[in-house]
Amino acid sequence: MKNILIIGAGKSSSFLIKYLLEKSDEENLRIIIGDITTKNAEKLINNHKNAKSVVLDIFKTKQRQELIKKNDLVISMLPARFHIEVAKDCILFSKHLVTASYISEEIKVLDEAVKAKNLVFMNEIGLDPGIDHMSAMQVLDNIRNKGAKMLLFESFCGGLVAPESDNNLWNYKFTWNPRNVVLSGQGGAAMFIQEHTYKYIPYHKLFRRTEFLKINNSKYEAYANRDSLKYRSIYGLDNIPTMYRGTIRKVGFSRAWNIFVQLGMTDDTYTIEDSENMSYRDFVNLFLAYSPSDSVELKLRSYLKIDQDDVMWEKLIELDIFNAKKKIGLKNATPAQILQKILEDSWTLKEHDKDMIVMQHLFGYEINGEKHQIESSLTVTGENQTYTAMAKTVGLPVGIAALKILKGAIKTPGVQRPITKEVYEPILKELENYGIKFLEKEVPYLGYNPNHVFG
Amino acid sequence: MKNILIIGAGKSSSFLIKYLLEKSDEENLRIIIGDITTKNAEKLINNHKNAKSVVLDIFKTKQRQELIKKNDLVISMLPARFHIEVAKDCILFSKHLVTASYISEEIKVLDEAVKAKNLVFMNEIGLDPGIDHMSAMQVLDNIRNKGAKMLLFESFCGGLVAPESDNNLWNYKFTWNPRNVVLSGQGGAAMFIQEHTYKYIPYHKLFRRTEFLKINNSKYEAYANRDSLKYRSIYGLDNIPTMYRGTIRKVGFSRAWNIFVQLGMTDDTYTIEDSENMSYRDFVNLFLAYSPSDSVELKLRSYLKIDQDDVMWEKLIELDIFNAKKKIGLKNATPAQILQKILEDSWTLKEHDKDMIVMQHLFGYEINGEKHQIESSLTVTGENQTYTAMAKTVGLPVGIAALKILKGAIKTPGVQRPITKEVYEPILKELENYGIKFLEKEVPYLGYNPNHVFG
Repeated sequence: MKNILIIGAGKSSSFLIKYLLEKSDEENLRIIIGDITTKNAEKLINNHKNAKSVVLDIFKTKQRQELIKKNDLVISMLPARFHIEVAKDCILFSKHLVTASYISEEIKVLDEAVKAKNLVFMNEIGLDPGIDHMSAMQVLDNIRNKGAKMLLFESFCGGLVAPESDNNLWNYKFTWNPRNVVLSGQGGAAMFIQEHTYKYIPYHKLFRRTEFLKINNSKYEAYANRDSLKYRSIYGLDNIPTMYRGTIRKVGFSRAWNIFVQLGMTDDTYTIEDSENMSYRDFVNLFLAYSPSDSVELKLRSYLKIDQDDVMWEKLIELDIFNAKKKIGLKNATPAQILQKILEDSWTLKEHDKDMIVMQHLFGYEINGEKHQIESSLTVTGENQTYTAMAKTVGLPVGIAALKILKGAIKTPGVQRPITKEVYEPILKELENYGIKFLEKEVPYLGYNPNHVFG
Repeated sequence: MKNILIIGAGKSSSFLIKYLLEKSDEENLRIIIGDITTKNAEKLINNHKNAKSVVLDIFKTKQRQELIKKNDLVISMLPARFHIEVAKDCILFSKHLVTASYISEEIKVLDEAVKAKNLVFMNEIGLDPGIDHMSAMQVLDNIRNKGAKMLLFESFCGGLVAPESDNNLWNYKFTWNPRNVVLSGQGGAAMFIQEHTYKYIPYHKLFRRTEFLKINNSKYEAYANRDSLKYRSIYGLDNIPTMYRGTIRKVGFSRAWNIFVQLGMTDDTYTIEDSENMSYRDFVNLFLAYSPSDSVELKLRSYLKIDQDDVMWEKLIELDIFNAKKKIGLKNATPAQILQKILEDSWTLKEHDKDMIVMQHLFGYEINGEKHQIESSLTVTGENQTYTAMAKTVGLPVGIAALKILKGAIKTPGVQRPITKEVYEPILKELENYGIKFLEKEVPYLGYNPNHVFG
């Protein structure tokens, strides 16, 4: 019998738990789900005989260690900053660890200790990071095995609302942590390289420098992720002329989102005095010139040069952002927290709303003097508000990796991400059984041509 | 005999040293100037019998303490972050301390220890902060002593090039630390309050939200300083409806400076790979879309919507920023460092160039049901590149304060800024002897009216 401890029964854990429970008889698994309350865990377990939930406060060392000690492998679905104590305990008690989070500096330095105990600490094995690494590395390795030279790698991913549930002007709803959506793109300039030319985009221009792309005959736009340059070394593409990673939205989203950026509403670095008693309208007015004889609406339009019949304007109206009666109700909140609240009024998934994950990689390469391009795309649609495409694409690779590690199919020790064939091949293969399959096609080599989607 | 130690013989110390030397016979002073090299100190001392220079590395504790021990008062003209060790020694050896820097958190917590030893630690006693505090508090106290209610306080300051040396399209040269000029406005949104309405301006909009003002019949513009709100409590104006502080430039500067902000060239948070070998033109191109068939010039104009015959465009050309042959020559530099270098080619003061300080306060108040406004303005012109208006307005209040402290005319102990009558009155009075005198006039109360300058 193998014992698995899952820490955190939040939004991303539904498919993970479902997957492990389905496998639990055949694989002889016992699943323990620890969280600060057992409510969501109980719901997801749904009385399954091979699982139980326990109250776990990860800041209580004794409680945490007792639980980790009793299991063979730990899956931490906590926010990234909480993994470190769990990781140290896993070393102490010789347990494998799986997380969907980026490898932090403090996790990275555990590598030697993890290797010394012959453990696998698999990180970045959700969707993005996760499926992006695996699907990219599989194609990259195939291309490089043919002796080809890589010319271009572009990779895009987005969590969107599925077309059947897409009923607002923004073509967007919150399908994961709203806070991360509001803060997306902050924390430094976006950096990438195109045909050997470095490019840097400051945050306040990010949403005006989008690229277009087409996935399964639908048009999308993407804005650049923060640091595409560092992926050159991770993917073994140190001298690649073009490296770009971006976040996908429906066309028109970024142009309208830019209004919030320009106003300063996405700022999370300071708090607003007396925010609690302000109305939505007061909030907007904070960012506009003082001129009591003009309306907030006209000041905003004039400031950002938005025509009255521009759809951007209708998008703002749809959010009811000029309402003088709706109170913010958040004490000493940052602009970003207030904006999040206003957006949640409109963008929260309804019970039967479905989300959708889209991902696309472009690979350009040269072999025998000829240039080629491969386009590899993925679309996954969610089932409902609990079994979302996001939870599926994050949770399944985590669950599959956990089982493969327990069975010894994945065994190279150390702190790692899924970029080796030993890891990505079996996981991608099993993901296909769940409808997570990339459509790969050869397309004419276009290199970097900003007009190629519609040109 | 009284012994004064001045630490730092940089640009801001020329007038300070001159003042103290002129007073040294009459006041029986001995001046020691410590710096990492004695070159500049020797020049400023010019063989005066009452002064000498010594090599001082402030990070060498023994050397620093030996020197502090031998003096009665220490003036630290170091950058603000280096004051703390000097300040601790001053407590240890019971010496007064004078600096022109903002009170940092670590200096602030010394207050009790300073009081316990009956010492005066006078900070923020240069120009801005310094003369601004003193001149504002003098008028504010006068108004409040009449029983009036304050309605408005706006305060503006700028270090500019004097009209007779103003020969570039930007009407600007570096008259103090160029790095601070390039980074000006960064580090958070600008915040202020106008007629009880809070206003927040993000950095990327700061230079498009200027206010106009008129000083001695010249037109200027000002952009908001970072946190005007905190000055409400410092000046005892907690409930004032309007509080705004800004930085003065000649009209048109901010609109053009905004080009650099929009491009992302003022960013100091990351370094550019291979910056050393890039040309000025390459640098500009880093921030523009990749499109090798278009010129850097056209891409920039199209991106920022600048007409060819707009003077902003000529300002860029004047800086030679599109030169493909001039190399940056700085290794792993940040965008801000590179921009600084490019600007220094054009904006460095020539030997006989004169700088100019302008400051203006506006005070609105109500008494007996009537509203009044006072406008108080200062213009100071420098003599040359060494005896600048900046060095004069920073150094003289520092020097005057030091003497008043030594003579016991300023004696209230503690870590402080010059906002009490005991401090500002004698200093402002003596500053008048050096041509530093505010012109105060009553004007009709206009309150907040953005058109009042030209309307």
